[in-house]
Parts: sequence; C-alpha cells; structure tokens
Amino acid sequence: MIVGIIGLGLIGGSMAIDLKRRGFATTVLGVEADPVHAAAAEKMGLADELVSYEDCIGRSDIVVIAVPVGTAVKMLPDILDRFQAAGARDKIVIDTCSTKSRIVRSVHYHPSRGQYVATHPMAGTEYSGPWAAMPNLFDGRACIFANAEESSDKALRTVERLYDVLNMRLTYMNADNHDVHTAYVSHISHVTSFALALTVLDKERDEKHIFDLASGGFSSTVRLAKSNAEMWVPILTQNRDNILQVMDTYIEKMKDFREAIAEGDQDRIESLIHEANRIKKILR
Amino acid sequence: MIVGIIGLGLIGGSMAIDLKRRGFATTVLGVEADPVHAAAAEKMGLADELVSYEDCIGRSDIVVIAVPVGTAVKMLPDILDRFQAAGARDKIVIDTCSTKSRIVRSVHYHPSRGQYVATHPMAGTEYSGPWAAMPNLFDGRACIFANAEESSDKALRTVERLYDVLNMRLTYMNADNHDVHTAYVSHISHVTSFALALTVLDKERDEKHIFDLASGGFSSTVRLAKSNAEMWVPILTQNRDNILQVMDTYIEKMKDFREAIAEGDQDRIESLIHEANRIKKILR
Repeated sequence: MIVGIIGLGLIGGSMAIDLKRRGFATTVLGVEADPVHAAAAEKMGLADELVSYEDCIGRSDIVVIAVPVGTAVKMLPDILDRFQAAGARDKIVIDTCSTKSRIVRSVHYHPSRGQYVATHPMAGTEYSGPWAAMPNLFDGRACIFANAEESSDKALRTVERLYDVLNMRLTYMNADNHDVHTAYVSHISHVTSFALALTVLDKERDEKHIFDLASGGFSSTVRLAKSNAEMWVPILTQNRDNILQVMDTYIEKMKDFREAIAEGDQDRIESLIHEANRIKKILR
Repeated sequence: MIVGIIGLGLIGGSMAIDLKRRGFATTVLGVEADPVHAAAAEKMGLADELVSYEDCIGRSDIVVIAVPVGTAVKMLPDILDRFQAAGARDKIVIDTCSTKSRIVRSVHYHPSRGQYVATHPMAGTEYSGPWAAMPNLFDGRACIFANAEESSDKALRTVERLYDVLNMRLTYMNADNHDVHTAYVSHISHVTSFALALTVLDKERDEKHIFDLASGGFSSTVRLAKSNAEMWVPILTQNRDNILQVMDTYIEKMKDFREAIAEGDQDRIESLIHEANRIKKILR
C-alpha cells in the first residue's frame, strides 16, 4: 500500500518510519512545505520520495494529514474534493490532529465523507520537526477514533489495521467528547507547563540559578513548556471553550491551595495533598 | 567513619546505600520511627544496624537528619544539646531538608552551632519510604550548603567530602536565598502538580478515561502530585511567604493565558508560548 504523509514532523515522520519498516507501507510518499524540514527529512530518509501535495494525493492509497490543526481543517475538504473529482473512491484520508470537533464538522456533509477517518494518536514528545521523529513512538499508547460511524466500513477497517501496526490501543469516541477529555488530560498540562515556565523565567532573572537548582521534579513538570507554538496555538484556539472550563477549575484549585497555605492551615493542606495523591491509583 | 541516619526514607535510605558501598561509612546506623518502615529497612539491609535515637547520637561520628522538616526543626537543637552534654566536640550533624531558613535560625545561637552543617541535596523522586531508596540517586545533582560560614571549618570539610562521595555539585547560599530559589524551581512545581491532579480528578468522574487517555505529557506534568503529605505540608508551611509570592505570579500568568485564549488572540498566545519556550535554553 502506498502511504502519503503530509507533514514529516514528529507525528508524520514517526509514522513514516514504522509504517515502512513494519511492512504496512510498500512506499511512503512525503510532503513537506518547510524547505529546511524537507531537506532534513530527505537526508534522514523518512520517506521514500518527497513529492508535491498534488502528486501525493494522486498516487497514495492512504493520505495522512499530519500538520497543525489550523492548516488541517482547510486541507481535508480539499483532499476529499480531489478524491471526488478523480473518481478515486478507494482512496482514504486520515488526520492526526489533537482537536476533533472542528475538523469533523468541516466535512460532515461532504459526499466523500466515508473516505475520511478522524483519528488522534495520543503520542508525542515536547520536540517537533523531522529530527524529532523516532521509531516506536506510538507503541502501547491510545489512539482515538472520532465519529467512526461516519466513515465507510472499508476505510475504517484499513485505518484500524494501520494503527494496529503501530501497536496502538484503539478507542472510539464522539468528536465533541474527545475534545472535552483531551482538554482535561492533555491540553491543560501544556498550559500549566507554559505558565510555570513563564513564572520561573519572570521571577528568576538570573538564569544560572534555574540551571543550577532545577531538580528532576521541576524539569519534568516544565518539560511541555518546550512545545512549539505552531502546533499549540491552533489547538488552544479550536478547543477554547473546553480549555477555558478546565483552566477555571484549575485556577480555583490553585486558589484553594493558596488560601490553605496563607492561613497556615496544615490540616487543609494535608487533605488537599491526600486528595491529589489519588492520581497514583489511576496512573500506573 | 560511623554515619547515623535518622529517617530511612527516600533520602536517608539512598544515602545509606551509597555512603556504605562507596566506602565513606564503615558502619551505617539507622533510626526509623515508623515500625513498618523500620521492618522494611531492616529487611532491605539499608543500614548495618537499626538503633534507638539516643544510641545513634551516642555512637555516630556524623548524624544525618533525614526526616520531614517540621520534625527536623525540633530534633536539631536536641542533638546539639546532646553533643554538648556529652562533650562530643568532634561529632557532626547535618540535615537534608528542603527549607532552610527556619532550621538554621533554630540553632543560630547554640554554643555547638559549628558542629552543624545545613545542606539540601536536591534529588528525589515522587516516591517515599525505604522502598523508594535507590543507589546513585544523588549523582550529578545540586547540593546546597546554607550559611556554611556558621559551621566550623572541620565540620564543613567533612560534610563536603560526604557529598563529594555522593557525586553532587556543591553550591553555597544564604538560607533565606535558598528558600526563595527553591520556592521557584522546586516547591511551585509540586503545587502546580497537586492542583492539576485535583482538577482532573474533579472533572473526570470516570477514572477509566484518565487512565485510557493520559498521554506521556500529562503523566510527567502530574507526576509530582504523587508526593507525600508528610513531607510537603511542613515545606509549604515553612516556606509560606516565598511560595505565596510565586503562586501569585503563577496565577497571574494563568490568567494572562486564559485571557488570550478567551479572546481568541492567536498572536498573544503565540508570544506567550515563545516566551515560555525560552526554558529550553536553560534546561538542557
């Protein structure tokens, strides 16, 4: 099967590596708009061939959209238009974006809607670009299929096979629910890390102190603050309502904590920590 | 040299392991008040011998206080009293606590002050108890010496040697400055993690969703929320003023972010993320 991947960054590049070496793709075609990324992807051999957007859609059996969600929302209807214009009824397109409501709505009434499968492979690191691509990135992680009932059976089965090859745990969910849940367990973590980095950078004028003193705990909590704006601005914009709700709860919890500390109320601090400790039982 | 360690948890237990196997301690005496922890420490062989508090002080050349800072503040003057009463002028006591202003003040005028060295080895994990102890925990991390000029030269040199054996990077600092800096680069990370755990637990009634969907990013950001109350209540209480100041800045940053997202102001979100990204250059 010929797999075309648009965007050879962390997600697209890692898919390219594993789909090829695990035999799902006979050929991987890559599309990369950024010339520096394209040169790196070529040098790293992420795809068998770097091609134009049009060529990729014309030649691939499955097209994977792995670009920031703002761009993806415009690209998806165009790809389905092209499938339709070419009478290519067996071709499939998937996206890998972290927000699903808007992209799913963008093609809800498209006559070729069945050829699109909305997915969110929940894997990644705080790095981006082709140099962040790595083998085994997806192994064991969750992949959410959103509004799977709107895809054709055949397209769905093929894409399930693709993610099986990537060793992902498949989960099915309505797109709106997806956006609520990811606001809680993924998007908010990024916002809190960004805010933590801003706080420390603001307060610690002397960067040497941060470097010297940063414990492992600080590093892991602030890790996501390295994440790139190109990916996160559209996510935070598209999932605005859900994220604002989670942020409001979060700010409330911080204020609870602040009050308990300000009052020196040790019992209350203790019970807040015990409550937070419950996360232990949920995360292995 | 006989090293007595009071509190065989994550820090005390890990010190016991490395000081013994690296030859600094000929004998490690352990004191452990919690009977379950004591039984585990004994079974794990963390110390050569489990002894009473009094025995430990009587027999050790160096006493290491590795208990939560609330207890440590009461224990330290008592130990110096006992050194004095016994005419034991060559014995040394150190503490390993995460806040330093109060403990240093508690013995400022003690006639045996010189025999105490205030240290904060900045290493750890989110786990606690003797089962959390591990070899090589301290390698390469920072160890802060607070108000080193109040310790006798001889005590200081011996304790520097102890931390050299643990492969730590030694840093010297005034106790009050220590508490300011650790509020920024360590204590606040714990508070933000606790608040994140509380938020997600509050919002996601269905724990299965958290488990299924939690990405690596969420896990690392929330990791510190597993930290235990016994250790953290006294830290947050003792370092209250500094922590409140950092929390206020943090809440401001969250509100900036919230406003930018609420207004859909992509340029502002982008510039906040770019600013936060600067943390990349500081943390390797």
